Amino acid sequence: MGVGDPSIPSSERPEPGSVNIPFAKLPATSTNELVDAHKVIQEIIARFNDGLSKHDHSAIADLFLKEKSYWRDHLALTWSLRTVKGSANIKQYLDSSKVRLAVLAVDKSTEYRAPQFGPIDAWGDVNGIRSFVTFETSIGRGEGVMTLAEENGQWKVFTLYTLLKELKGHEEPVNHRRTRGVKHGGDPDRKNWRELRDAEKEEIDPKVLILGAGQGGLTVAARLKMLNVPAIMVDQNERVGDNWRKRYRQLVLHDPVWYDHLPYVPFPSHWPVFTPKDKLAEFFEAYVNLLELNVWTSTSLKSTSWDENKKVWTVTVERRKSDGTSETRTLHPKHIVQATGHSGEKNFPKIKGMDDFKGDRLCHSSEHPGANPESKGKKAVVVGCCNSGHDIAQDFFEKGYNVTLVQRSTTCVVSSESICDIGNKGLFDQDGPPVDDADLTQWGVPSELLKLQQLKLTKVQAEHDKKIHDGLRAAGFGLDSGPMDAGLFIKYFQRGGGYYIDVGASQLIIDGKIKIKQGQEIAQILPNGIEFADGDKLEADEIVFATGYQNMRTQARKIFGDEVADRVSDVWGFNVEGEFRTMWQKSGHPGLWFMGGNLAISRYYSRILALQIKAIEEGLIQDVEDAKAKL
Amino acid sequence: MGVGDPSIPSSERPEPGSVNIPFAKLPATSTNELVDAHKVIQEIIARFNDGLSKHDHSAIADLFLKEKSYWRDHLALTWSLRTVKGSANIKQYLDSSKVRLAVLAVDKSTEYRAPQFGPIDAWGDVNGIRSFVTFETSIGRGEGVMTLAEENGQWKVFTLYTLLKELKGHEEPVNHRRTRGVKHGGDPDRKNWRELRDAEKEEIDPKVLILGAGQGGLTVAARLKMLNVPAIMVDQNERVGDNWRKRYRQLVLHDPVWYDHLPYVPFPSHWPVFTPKDKLAEFFEAYVNLLELNVWTSTSLKSTSWDENKKVWTVTVERRKSDGTSETRTLHPKHIVQATGHSGEKNFPKIKGMDDFKGDRLCHSSEHPGANPESKGKKAVVVGCCNSGHDIAQDFFEKGYNVTLVQRSTTCVVSSESICDIGNKGLFDQDGPPVDDADLTQWGVPSELLKLQQLKLTKVQAEHDKKIHDGLRAAGFGLDSGPMDAGLFIKYFQRGGGYYIDVGASQLIIDGKIKIKQGQEIAQILPNGIEFADGDKLEADEIVFATGYQNMRTQARKIFGDEVADRVSDVWGFNVEGEFRTMWQKSGHPGLWFMGGNLAISRYYSRILALQIKAIEEGLIQDVEDAKAKL
Repeated sequence: MGVGDPSIPSSERPEPGSVNIPFAKLPATSTNELVDAHKVIQEIIARFNDGLSKHDHSAIADLFLKEKSYWRDHLALTWSLRTVKGSANIKQYLDSSKVRLAVLAVDKSTEYRAPQFGPIDAWGDVNGIRSFVTFETSIGRGEGVMTLAEENGQWKVFTLYTLLKELKGHEEPVNHRRTRGVKHGGDPDRKNWRELRDAEKEEIDPKVLILGAGQGGLTVAARLKMLNVPAIMVDQNERVGDNWRKRYRQLVLHDPVWYDHLPYVPFPSHWPVFTPKDKLAEFFEAYVNLLELNVWTSTSLKSTSWDENKKVWTVTVERRKSDGTSETRTLHPKHIVQATGHSGEKNFPKIKGMDDFKGDRLCHSSEHPGANPESKGKKAVVVGCCNSGHDIAQDFFEKGYNVTLVQRSTTCVVSSESICDIGNKGLFDQDGPPVDDADLTQWGVPSELLKLQQLKLTKVQAEHDKKIHDGLRAAGFGLDSGPMDAGLFIKYFQRGGGYYIDVGASQLIIDGKIKIKQGQEIAQILPNGIEFADGDKLEADEIVFATGYQNMRTQARKIFGDEVADRVSDVWGFNVEGEFRTMWQKSGHPGLWFMGGNLAISRYYSRILALQIKAIEEGLIQDVEDAKAKL
Repeated sequence: MGVGDPSIPSSERPEPGSVNIPFAKLPATSTNELVDAHKVIQEIIARFNDGLSKHDHSAIADLFLKEKSYWRDHLALTWSLRTVKGSANIKQYLDSSKVRLAVLAVDKSTEYRAPQFGPIDAWGDVNGIRSFVTFETSIGRGEGVMTLAEENGQWKVFTLYTLLKELKGHEEPVNHRRTRGVKHGGDPDRKNWRELRDAEKEEIDPKVLILGAGQGGLTVAARLKMLNVPAIMVDQNERVGDNWRKRYRQLVLHDPVWYDHLPYVPFPSHWPVFTPKDKLAEFFEAYVNLLELNVWTSTSLKSTSWDENKKVWTVTVERRKSDGTSETRTLHPKHIVQATGHSGEKNFPKIKGMDDFKGDRLCHSSEHPGANPESKGKKAVVVGCCNSGHDIAQDFFEKGYNVTLVQRSTTCVVSSESICDIGNKGLFDQDGPPVDDADLTQWGVPSELLKLQQLKLTKVQAEHDKKIHDGLRAAGFGLDSGPMDAGLFIKYFQRGGGYYIDVGASQLIIDGKIKIKQGQEIAQILPNGIEFADGDKLEADEIVFATGYQNMRTQARKIFGDEVADRVSDVWGFNVEGEFRTMWQKSGHPGLWFMGGNLAISRYYSRILALQIKAIEEGLIQDVEDAKAKL
């Protein structure tokens, strides 16, 4: 994503305008191992509910640790995504909002969710009590996680997370609520499923127009379907899944299957640990069919305009048909969800001499079709040292090219084993809890605490990866450990890139099979190569810029124009509370939403976004502007 | 299916040559509610294992009730599907086979599976102890169910079921054994997933050729895939799912979703209770992709021949391509699985005058495209009173036809509610156990005991359906309660048809909206209607014969010719032990297998069939003929 201020080291450079958040401060550990965790948390929650029923916000706030506590709330209290720190701020927040939260309860439904004494910092440096909770608000239901720390013999709330999961009267049609599939009896006007489905796909008058049918579009479409909000995805590609299918040949997801599940249709038990891109594309196609999502492929936006009075968009799209003809359709959605990839426009620098390059190919990684098996012995240069750059360099090597990777700053490198076997262990792995529980565990952690956890994790991963790291340094590769040494995950959250999950290319670099040109910007492109700022020259038959993507806001500007884009806030990276900026929440422009992230993030935040849209449609929020005014 | 001997009442008439099995005799009930079920079953199993280790078959047989006991075995003891009754026969069976079974163990993995005191007859007339068991044989692992009855203060085995689930060294690549999806590191010969998959689909040299890509073909293909046996399905239709897609317009599965899951990719939590045919077809297409099954559509068999010496088939198929051309391919599979529908050829009687019918349409139900919305007021006659006949009559009514249903014998009618809310309750429903547990519970019951359970169930269902039954009788409709009053399920098992799961047409009959002509054969087709044996005449613009299908063996004769078909035994219906005949087991002809049944049966028996093929391929059974000789 954004390159940001070059005076700041690569590792510390956040998404422009976002906050490089501090680490949480941990409370003291408890040695009270024999405590009755059920009883303690039950008592806290009884007092909590007493405070709620009496509107006694001081009493509620007093249950929290004075300084070190957090209440992270995703839509239970207000229509914002918030993390409020310390009891005084929590009281103030409760005072300033119309508190919908009605009652909390301990979740004892499984052993994993039930109260237990143990680590509340994920590492065991601080022991306390943790439990999942459920809650009801005036308009919905949800769940969350509460951790308690012992302070001077008193148990206090260290963290509370509350996540709205459904709106009353609009519960999802799953399990006991699934539809019948047929209305028994004699109905003269009966249409069969195929007829109804075909009509829905073609004649839809969507409340929500979703731009893009990647994981962002698919997951939010699935959530809206379950909430009975008419929605349609439009995508320029010919087939659903093409956004992955068209990427570089050897691309395989770097995250394991347990982390990647989509909502409602999880990957089956035989699914490979790392999903190849074309297999993911086929899954996406199946996903659309199994969930009856609406998508127009081969469809491009022609124009958009927002009517500020009517609060409605007018959108014209052109849809190419399989018979070669095109049709123009005009839609009037109340909401547009931009799900064009959280990365947005490709970051393809204009460099002197580019137009005069005489080699076989010069392109951005998103356009790279893969190394040419006929080009054995040719010279390739890949500019950019994150996942794509490494994968493409590896592809060139495997096809017999002479390949150099150009690294201008530093990269955070963590091995795939360190991610899967250390980072995800016990959470997103074969023996982990149900994925919903793992999600709640992960997102229930305030970002400042997450960052501290990741600092510790990064040290352990670095020990595991020591040989690779030492070898990379010896090969002249520039390494970093992420913002404040908090590692890959935090670098992804705060900056959106700058890392490599090692799946083999690091060893090729160590072995000299992939060469490294480190620390220099490119001065110019030569007809047969590259010249660097230090005067070094490198011959090249092919040059690939794996230089990432720009902020989603740049894409919004391109799609909607300046008037809309100027109202939108910056996207991605943390705000001062450690909440993501602008994604999955009011964007600054009414009726415009940003959706994106990897598969896991899309799985989680798609519901949060869809619930806000549903709430607006049901009049629970008057409209987006009102919602903003309320806060 | 087969119509059978008309001198036997419809309800009692089994598949020709099969056995109308007797009811099981129940042991006495135990009132020993406070018994330590774990301890009792642990002791029995210890003695069982002691007998196994000492090859003391008498000691094992003595653990069973003398007369009333059953050991149902699906591949744990031999390569046959067997139900052996009484301790003497059990001893003899053990003596006559090379016992692979090594050790049994109590399954305490979940509350549902663990030992418990309660009904062992499904109704509570007989209480005893039930537990799931696991076992190991010399070549594999499996699981089953054991029930114990108390006889004179002694606990004895009433039923034991043993099901082989995997072969050692050939465990399925699921969960902890799932594939990686990628080989990390630098591999110059790397092919990506798409390239490997495309090659597999086109260049396959299958060990197993599967005829048909309906639920039978799909499930056995999925099982073989997991066992790493190269297999391909061929299907005449253009698209996977067309076997359902092309059926009558308003067809919706009459069984609920919890009963219908396919292996490895269960229906998701939002799936409707009753799946519409086109939605099932889309699921089938997704199933092929998600499981990477191989299927050639638009492909027809041109010739088949069996080489008795080489034990290999030569099969020529013609494959129509999307560009309009055709290619002929010759395959040399060791096995052919006929999965053309357990029903086989349509049963379309040749009746005098048929060729001179002057109305709009006269066809078999499998060719009926649905009532014509433009034909309001026209006269339709549907011959045949099972599921299809009722559904089609309902469709005619809904489109405004004047419709008569011709019922020649009697029909077993049970309401959909009685099936779902009484028959499947607690087993295949939203609150039931995992589908694998429900399957083991169901198939672990010897057929004679199942029949007794179904007798009791049928009475309860009839009470629930009393109003409908009374109304139907008043409308002149002929009802039966299945073989020996054991109901719909047993009628399906013993005869393959003869029932209607009421989803609304019964009320239309009661209300006179669908008229009934009962008890008369058709004498001839008139140019404008039908004349019956009693001289009655009925005008008709459309006549549909919903007269079912013939035995699979007739289809085999058509495909493979007399030489092959003559070696094949009769298909479907029970043998004297209450095991299904010929399906999913050696058929009489080496290298030829029959696969079929509804979705639930296909789910279950596909593994049993695939394991036999894998065992042959791994040399665990020398070949099919040897296997036969061994028994």
